[in-house]
Amino acid sequence: METNRRSFLGASALMAGGALLTSFDCEPGKMPAYRASGKGLKLTWKPYDLQLRHTFTIASNSRKTTAVVLTQLEWEGVIGYGEGSMPPYLGESHETAQKFLSALKLDQFRDPFRMEEILDYVDQIMPGNCAAKASVDIALHDLVGKLLNQPWHRIWGYSKENTPLSTFTIGIDKGPEVVAKTKEASAFKILKVKIGGGNDEEMINSVRSVTQIPLCVDVNQGWKERQEALDKVHWLKEQGIVFIEQPFDKHNLEDTAWLTQHSPLPILADEAMQRVGDLKKLQGVYSGINCKLMKCTGMREAHKILETARSLNMKTLMGCMTETSCGTSAAAQLSPIVDWADLDGNLLISNDLYEGMKIVEGKIVLSDLPGIGIRSIG
Amino acid sequence: METNRRSFLGASALMAGGALLTSFDCEPGKMPAYRASGKGLKLTWKPYDLQLRHTFTIASNSRKTTAVVLTQLEWEGVIGYGEGSMPPYLGESHETAQKFLSALKLDQFRDPFRMEEILDYVDQIMPGNCAAKASVDIALHDLVGKLLNQPWHRIWGYSKENTPLSTFTIGIDKGPEVVAKTKEASAFKILKVKIGGGNDEEMINSVRSVTQIPLCVDVNQGWKERQEALDKVHWLKEQGIVFIEQPFDKHNLEDTAWLTQHSPLPILADEAMQRVGDLKKLQGVYSGINCKLMKCTGMREAHKILETARSLNMKTLMGCMTETSCGTSAAAQLSPIVDWADLDGNLLISNDLYEGMKIVEGKIVLSDLPGIGIRSIG
Repeated sequence: METNRRSFLGASALMAGGALLTSFDCEPGKMPAYRASGKGLKLTWKPYDLQLRHTFTIASNSRKTTAVVLTQLEWEGVIGYGEGSMPPYLGESHETAQKFLSALKLDQFRDPFRMEEILDYVDQIMPGNCAAKASVDIALHDLVGKLLNQPWHRIWGYSKENTPLSTFTIGIDKGPEVVAKTKEASAFKILKVKIGGGNDEEMINSVRSVTQIPLCVDVNQGWKERQEALDKVHWLKEQGIVFIEQPFDKHNLEDTAWLTQHSPLPILADEAMQRVGDLKKLQGVYSGINCKLMKCTGMREAHKILETARSLNMKTLMGCMTETSCGTSAAAQLSPIVDWADLDGNLLISNDLYEGMKIVEGKIVLSDLPGIGIRSIG
Repeated sequence: METNRRSFLGASALMAGGALLTSFDCEPGKMPAYRASGKGLKLTWKPYDLQLRHTFTIASNSRKTTAVVLTQLEWEGVIGYGEGSMPPYLGESHETAQKFLSALKLDQFRDPFRMEEILDYVDQIMPGNCAAKASVDIALHDLVGKLLNQPWHRIWGYSKENTPLSTFTIGIDKGPEVVAKTKEASAFKILKVKIGGGNDEEMINSVRSVTQIPLCVDVNQGWKERQEALDKVHWLKEQGIVFIEQPFDKHNLEDTAWLTQHSPLPILADEAMQRVGDLKKLQGVYSGINCKLMKCTGMREAHKILETARSLNMKTLMGCMTETSCGTSAAAQLSPIVDWADLDGNLLISNDLYEGMKIVEGKIVLSDLPGIGIRSIG
């Protein structure tokens, strides 16, 4: 993207009367401190298609590719990387991302540390566009983390060995294919099984024919009737399932609250949980929430969501879409404080462009690189 | 305090098999990144008595001094400053702080960035002791902010000019004294008037005889009867009051919820609001909360409280005790995101030992110094 020079010059002229702070030396840390400079943030982006290793089927659809937008945010020679992942059922696309990102005038911001102000501006430009917004948020976090020369899990005060295991997702399929995929996932210590597609018992039995590790299930709104759902929950508990995600339609709070009240397993909101403001109505209805950067506009709001959910004694799951290691590494920065994680999105694709967080013996391992902890390998 | 060498050597021996990470150069920020070192955190402290400019009277008591504990936390030659303020009615004292801080073995921690782990340890050593805990939390934040070479309001992504006005507190007194104190506070654009001591109308009328600026009132649990309270609220609204703090006993949730429901003014929890876990039961009962570092164990939990309250659409007030500029400057780092602030504690004393946040034309002005933004002037 070319910098919009007219807008940039306009903003500069506006500020000409004010003091332009520049870097200066500061005793305690014995290193120069970054302050606002005369130069604005420069955002660039490109569309990209993730190639899925397996055709991916959930209760509502199946597909072989995922559209993403890859961003770069540059300031004072330092570049932050970001990504927005746009599975088609969420309504975003290369076209909507292009339209959204083109509307942003980030060169008006000369100080990347003013993250609340910058990201409030990004959020208020248009409604929706949560993945496109996340692509800016992640790039800004990567940039600021690099300026602070620390990864975000350290800036937030977390300990890197507190990362949880990550689930690996087994999509809905026929029994033999499920058995094959489960065998392929033998490096993982917990699996997420997609159900709600009419063959719930076949799915679980197929996985259980291969492994006895803990499982969680994601119904993706696939269940319709609450007593039948509760019967399934009891059966699932006997099968070693540890939590259940999004059993009913996201608008059906009444049946969900009833199920949560009667269920021996935690019931988590996924489709029902988008932005931080949703927590107020979801408390008491669900036991916890699945927080994804692409739903909530990025790391800043995800951090607020997780802190708020924990304050309300709700369970937390850090999830993802199919993403490169850029998106999953950004999400992984928050993983030391969650109950569970589902950060396998980069493992589901064959054309990753970054190296960052790893899963080693089933557990998330954060890199020591600053920012979101990635390097480009594209 | 002498480092407990046996404990320190024990911890070192325990870690001898592991990799001891040291500082290394890192490309993006072009500065060395702080990592864990072989040396533990070193905590020292001293008792100190704040001299109050005026004898301070609220609904429950009056006094001329406030006991505080001043801490220093050192790591790799960098020193963070902290403070715990212990007004007598909260049950802490020089003796309890001494006992609490002596029990901490912070030299077991060789990486100050692991703030959650360190502060969880501090919190779990003993119950209570919230101000003593805050004295460690603030020193740790000052230290880590200095290592990152940025003040916390920038690390948290806030814009420094978004700080609110600060109230200045007028204690309960006779009419002429209230008039004199109000005149002395003419630099402020909003005042907090202490009421609930049996002369509410005299207090407000005395202040209003001098100034027409916005006021808020703090009842300090002084009201007893809900209909009478509501009548007072309506009268206070006519007098230009903007919010009401802690009208009833902190345990009286029923009358408070009723008053909040019927009140045209926001009703804020102060004594009822201590730790982040209190928010769950206070939502719907109060319109908002007064968050103080000395009640909630420090900046880390205060940040969680403010983010959670905002997520729940509750109003937020950042408050303080009588404190040096150490405590108020730490609290001020969070002030860009609150609705109101009451950070006049350092102005109420005559023997401050630090220079940091200022109040200029009634508005909080943050310093650009890293950490909590103070320098020692003692």
